Amino acid sequence: MQKTAGAARRLIATLRLRALGALGAGVLAANSPVHAQATPAAPPSFPDAAATDPITLGWMQGFPPPADKQIGFNIASSRFPRQRWSFSHMRELVPTAAVWHGRTGASALPRAERDISAVPFTDADGRRRMFSDMLALTYTDGILVMHKGKVVYERYFGALDDHTPHLAMSVTKSFVGTLAAVLAADGKLDPAAPVTRYVPELAGTAYGDATVRQVMDMTVGVKYSENYADPKAEVFDYARAGGMLPRDAAYTGPQNFYDFLKTLQKEGEHDQAFAYKTVNAEVLAWIVKRASGQSLATLLSDRVWQKMGAESDAYFTVDGIGTESGGGGLNTTLRDLARFGETMRNQGRFNGQQVIPASVVKEISGGGDRAKFAKAGYATLPGWSYRDMWWVSHDDHGVYEARGIHGQRIYIDPKAQMTIVRYASHPIAANAANDPVTHRAYRALAMELMKQ
Amino acid sequence: MQKTAGAARRLIATLRLRALGALGAGVLAANSPVHAQATPAAPPSFPDAAATDPITLGWMQGFPPPADKQIGFNIASSRFPRQRWSFSHMRELVPTAAVWHGRTGASALPRAERDISAVPFTDADGRRRMFSDMLALTYTDGILVMHKGKVVYERYFGALDDHTPHLAMSVTKSFVGTLAAVLAADGKLDPAAPVTRYVPELAGTAYGDATVRQVMDMTVGVKYSENYADPKAEVFDYARAGGMLPRDAAYTGPQNFYDFLKTLQKEGEHDQAFAYKTVNAEVLAWIVKRASGQSLATLLSDRVWQKMGAESDAYFTVDGIGTESGGGGLNTTLRDLARFGETMRNQGRFNGQQVIPASVVKEISGGGDRAKFAKAGYATLPGWSYRDMWWVSHDDHGVYEARGIHGQRIYIDPKAQMTIVRYASHPIAANAANDPVTHRAYRALAMELMKQ
Repeated sequence: MQKTAGAARRLIATLRLRALGALGAGVLAANSPVHAQATPAAPPSFPDAAATDPITLGWMQGFPPPADKQIGFNIASSRFPRQRWSFSHMRELVPTAAVWHGRTGASALPRAERDISAVPFTDADGRRRMFSDMLALTYTDGILVMHKGKVVYERYFGALDDHTPHLAMSVTKSFVGTLAAVLAADGKLDPAAPVTRYVPELAGTAYGDATVRQVMDMTVGVKYSENYADPKAEVFDYARAGGMLPRDAAYTGPQNFYDFLKTLQKEGEHDQAFAYKTVNAEVLAWIVKRASGQSLATLLSDRVWQKMGAESDAYFTVDGIGTESGGGGLNTTLRDLARFGETMRNQGRFNGQQVIPASVVKEISGGGDRAKFAKAGYATLPGWSYRDMWWVSHDDHGVYEARGIHGQRIYIDPKAQMTIVRYASHPIAANAANDPVTHRAYRALAMELMKQ
Repeated sequence: MQKTAGAARRLIATLRLRALGALGAGVLAANSPVHAQATPAAPPSFPDAAATDPITLGWMQGFPPPADKQIGFNIASSRFPRQRWSFSHMRELVPTAAVWHGRTGASALPRAERDISAVPFTDADGRRRMFSDMLALTYTDGILVMHKGKVVYERYFGALDDHTPHLAMSVTKSFVGTLAAVLAADGKLDPAAPVTRYVPELAGTAYGDATVRQVMDMTVGVKYSENYADPKAEVFDYARAGGMLPRDAAYTGPQNFYDFLKTLQKEGEHDQAFAYKTVNAEVLAWIVKRASGQSLATLLSDRVWQKMGAESDAYFTVDGIGTESGGGGLNTTLRDLARFGETMRNQGRFNGQQVIPASVVKEISGGGDRAKFAKAGYATLPGWSYRDMWWVSHDDHGVYEARGIHGQRIYIDPKAQMTIVRYASHPIAANAANDPVTHRAYRALAMELMKQ
């Protein structure tokens, strides 16, 4: 335990250093692997959740807000703690496309509430904590726990409430991966086909000799770095091209996602190892649009949002020509995220119908290649795998997750019949910063609920 | 009749010349007065509604759309006929703030449909037309006719459908004026008070010695031109400040609505004449926010959208610090616009409750000062007046309207128990270009429906 705790501390120190270069509201979407190369430098400390509450801090209050309390679409505005406001207000900062919730009305979310705040767990340092400690420690904006199909716990903090969409970050990718799997189940998309069958424009790029399956499982050899600490990392070029980060006047790079994706070159070989790169999700989004003939927003509305009886429109942030970001641009209410999580937990059934084919859920929850995943070195995810853009634990509960930086999460525990959805605005992008607390709290909660 | 027809032709010629300089998708929001100074130059002709159908033209179709079919936030994209697409897709171009529709579900819109397409009327040139001719002649994107509380006719064209919000342009102003009147009825806003009681920052501007009432009725003496044909007109400075028009790299002007409003200087005297200037609506929006302590989006949601049982979220376009445009930035579905029109027609009652105080509806429908209005020289609106940012006909049916450029309209005919809401993308901004057809068609329809 001591060894683990020490590793966790070093890991968090590293992540904190990385966070200094992170651009919170920049919609960056990653789950950085963390190796054991942590330096012994003291981690910078961040003010805690209470001290960075966006309402207390007065962000964007008043007409106009005071100059030092304004948040706009610029680099200064995107840094912590301003992201604690902006993750719940993305549409006020950038253009967006609606995911229509349809006209049938919201599906029921029956309630059986109980106060689980005091459910205890032991953190990575061996300290006793309560479930509510985890919420504050990980800068939670909202959490909703479903057990046996009922809402047992729902709390909002800061700038979020029960009807405002929050940025899902890379949880977006799991939606795109699911849609791809749905199209495959429909016979509209062949995972074994070359990417170029759907997107001939990618011939001559890293994707020129890759298959759709390699993209879905992120085993593509592509030169693209998601290291926030490196200002030259391609993740920033990606974000600027897609309108997620402000550009300076001298900007002459790609004007949209498509043009950026066409610049990507091969590095290494395909199919050797899992390598988490957001551009794979954007490429998959492109494939999915070509295979379905629909925009991502329309496809998600038709296949999921309307069928599951979403309560609110969701939305995607879009680039300068209206392209939804499939890598990290989805924004949903927490309740609709819970409906989707429950749809998955229930083998694709929700709202009285088969929303997602059961075969798709089986494929996803069954996971991917653990050996290829291990090569990526995720210290907080030992023994996991990645399939159709979902993260699969292979633990004794069959837990699998959709994960977005800064703490966005769908956590599905089939054995405990529990789904947890959470939006957050953690100062550190990489989820390895909150996994050591959240995973333990979720597991402890599952064990508690299973006593019912 | 011949004289009137000749005047109408000259008027339309003038408007077409103006339209050449107009920036359609720029969210410009005006109802230009038209005097009799038309030059005899031949009007440029615009391709008709069928030839400019945005689906037929292929705007924004494909992944990516072909380069010459892309519409973004830039000057080239904002010109006719591209606006036929963009007026129904504003949120994909600029940041926006949601007007939440609440959780009670959509209120009923009972239907008693009949095909009124062939209802005849005589246009300003003495030609016999049908109601459906009017729709095409005025580039209608959608129209919904309510009679005795039921939907008798609902049609969509081009890029609009029954659940997508369309830019309401200056119809926005009537919402802001109504909200101001509601706050006055609540005792939260005093129309007789100086503007500076609510917005002290406007001391030293044109509004420094104006009253709230003068702003509500647009009788403020302020140097501000809304003449689209003049590239130096302040309307363009306004639009750039508010993020409605792209800025070039050298732009150093005001960064938001508030800062622009603080630059406005007095010209002439207050309270002498009606002078339609969008900045009055922005000032009123500022006053309303200060008086209520709520953003425009929240106030509209609380006071109207939730109470009347809106079917969809509406939204406002916002400037770089999240300020909703009260001058022309509201986007709604046509159905929710119909609900609001019916609320007004029913003395403020809708969805089983008093949404707007009856006294407010009485004040608005009673109209303003006709003598002051006459001084503004609106050729197509003889005998009309302006009250609380609504246009009042004083005709024998008691017709009053909310009006936005390019053909946006709420037309309320109390005597005929008829409400018409219409969204359009007419190539000419000023409504004087469509009034000679639309007003006659609406009146003819009212007479027909009154036979029931």
